Amino acid sequence: MQHQKFITDKVVIDVGCGTGVLSIFCARAGARRVYAVDASLIANQAKQVVEDNNLSDKVIVLHGRIEVCYSCFLDVEIEETVDVIISEWMGYMLVYESMLESVIFARDKWLKPGGLILPSHASLYMAPVTNSERYHQSIDFWHNVYGIKMSALIPFAKLTAFEEPSVETIKGENVLTWPSLVTEVDCYTVRVQELKTITAKYEFSSMLQAPLHGFAFWFDVEFNGPELPVLNYYYNQLTSGSLSQDQHPHSSGHLRKRPKSEEAVILSTAPEDAPTHWQQTLVYMFDPIQLEEGQIVEGSVTISQREEHSRFLNIRLEFNSGGRSFEKVSVLR
Amino acid sequence: MQHQKFITDKVVIDVGCGTGVLSIFCARAGARRVYAVDASLIANQAKQVVEDNNLSDKVIVLHGRIEVCYSCFLDVEIEETVDVIISEWMGYMLVYESMLESVIFARDKWLKPGGLILPSHASLYMAPVTNSERYHQSIDFWHNVYGIKMSALIPFAKLTAFEEPSVETIKGENVLTWPSLVTEVDCYTVRVQELKTITAKYEFSSMLQAPLHGFAFWFDVEFNGPELPVLNYYYNQLTSGSLSQDQHPHSSGHLRKRPKSEEAVILSTAPEDAPTHWQQTLVYMFDPIQLEEGQIVEGSVTISQREEHSRFLNIRLEFNSGGRSFEKVSVLR
Repeated sequence: MQHQKFITDKVVIDVGCGTGVLSIFCARAGARRVYAVDASLIANQAKQVVEDNNLSDKVIVLHGRIEVCYSCFLDVEIEETVDVIISEWMGYMLVYESMLESVIFARDKWLKPGGLILPSHASLYMAPVTNSERYHQSIDFWHNVYGIKMSALIPFAKLTAFEEPSVETIKGENVLTWPSLVTEVDCYTVRVQELKTITAKYEFSSMLQAPLHGFAFWFDVEFNGPELPVLNYYYNQLTSGSLSQDQHPHSSGHLRKRPKSEEAVILSTAPEDAPTHWQQTLVYMFDPIQLEEGQIVEGSVTISQREEHSRFLNIRLEFNSGGRSFEKVSVLR
Repeated sequence: MQHQKFITDKVVIDVGCGTGVLSIFCARAGARRVYAVDASLIANQAKQVVEDNNLSDKVIVLHGRIEVCYSCFLDVEIEETVDVIISEWMGYMLVYESMLESVIFARDKWLKPGGLILPSHASLYMAPVTNSERYHQSIDFWHNVYGIKMSALIPFAKLTAFEEPSVETIKGENVLTWPSLVTEVDCYTVRVQELKTITAKYEFSSMLQAPLHGFAFWFDVEFNGPELPVLNYYYNQLTSGSLSQDQHPHSSGHLRKRPKSEEAVILSTAPEDAPTHWQQTLVYMFDPIQLEEGQIVEGSVTISQREEHSRFLNIRLEFNSGGRSFEKVSVLR
């Protein structure tokens, strides 16, 4: 609704429309025509919802796939170009089971030059976290169970609790310092291949003396208007991977490089903001590391789709601090 | 510990020992020897726990199956009879993924005549419940979503929320009247075949005027001493199925027929008692039925293991009240 002026009288495509809620918002914002597309059977319900809200003349619900599929032939036919693409494509940790590939496909096939994509940008962040409560509940419990020493179960408890990433809601106070940008997605220019593997270095300086239990990942998305700020040279170099964060002249990794548009609306899933169904994604270490105030924690993270199971995400975390280093590979599934 | 006098100097088998906690309790209660048996790899941890608590001379951890298995030959060898069987065999709704069959096998193979089984008896109950909060959250939400009429999604929301049984914790105030006994298990006499299908009639008189949203199931188990009360004739007839509740001379279905032993210790998972990890199992109806105070709700329930998937439970519920009747089949999986 804040971008109503860019939507009134325009043709819109809603990629993965689900119940049709965003398509109806666009129709209410004055869109001339909205193509609401979903490959799932929810499209039938969306069609009914559109009818029940007397918008069948504006919202065309299509049950089918955005991408061309040469084996199922279920791709939708849209015989015009569109002014606006809207989509709620984000998954856990931004990219888990994300529909961004469909957005890219729709963009390259139907979006007019100069058209609008909402959201327009997405940023994935990470930060070191402390979470003693979680650690005590999962691990320390076993030291004494009704007077029985059960420490033998701790390795097993650690595997159960911390081997794989977990989607949970933490609080702002669990976060030990400012987050680091893992990747930023420009929906106008991103290519499918860039999403297969995301690698970033990180460097944190703990603001507190506290046990480090692991790292949290979260994202925000921006809904910028069509006049995009020119991305600066270093930002482009950084995200294209030709310049490492170490080489970046303003490199701290902690602040976003791209100035925000004044028109931007931001949806944040950060621990300090209101909880969302995306929560945060946590990669815990098997053992906490006591951090001093100001202690540097650095390393890298690589997030990649598993080839044999493209919906699974591999998360490889390299860690160095205070002479300790390790690598942890876990799978969000 | 309350039955310590029956355990001191005795030989015990712990069926499905898990971490070994019950075996260690028995050793501390003075058992001469405890066979702690588990088919899962947790047996390795249990062995270490026993060592760490200096009980290796009393507790013998065996990794293997209680039942004879002619294909895997992983059944355990215990070369003596035992005085006591202990087991934490209960699953959700008592019988879901229960290990009672292993207890029966162990009883018939190793328990001395006059030996003790703990728990000795189990009772499964059901009661009608009202839960408007749950219904509103799952269903009424869709009437108006940010000003959009989304009632078309209600059939889908009902399927998602109420098609299958759910394991959740309700409160005593959700329960509309006294529970009805679905089945009672006497661990000394129960046979495997009796567990395959459990059928019971029920009849409730609502104590409140309230919407009926479904039925809750829960259980308790009793730890009776070895001197069992003689079960009365009608109770035996009732549970063996040769006499329906309608024919029962004192039939209300609401009160247990078997007098409790004075020595009984009871573990209850009822909504009015402290929550446990078993919670309660709820079978919701797709639509609430407004009950008047004193209105009779009657019908029957059949709980059966699915042949193709023996860990799944089929729950068939027949319902009659105020001229309305229906049947609902759902699967706890």
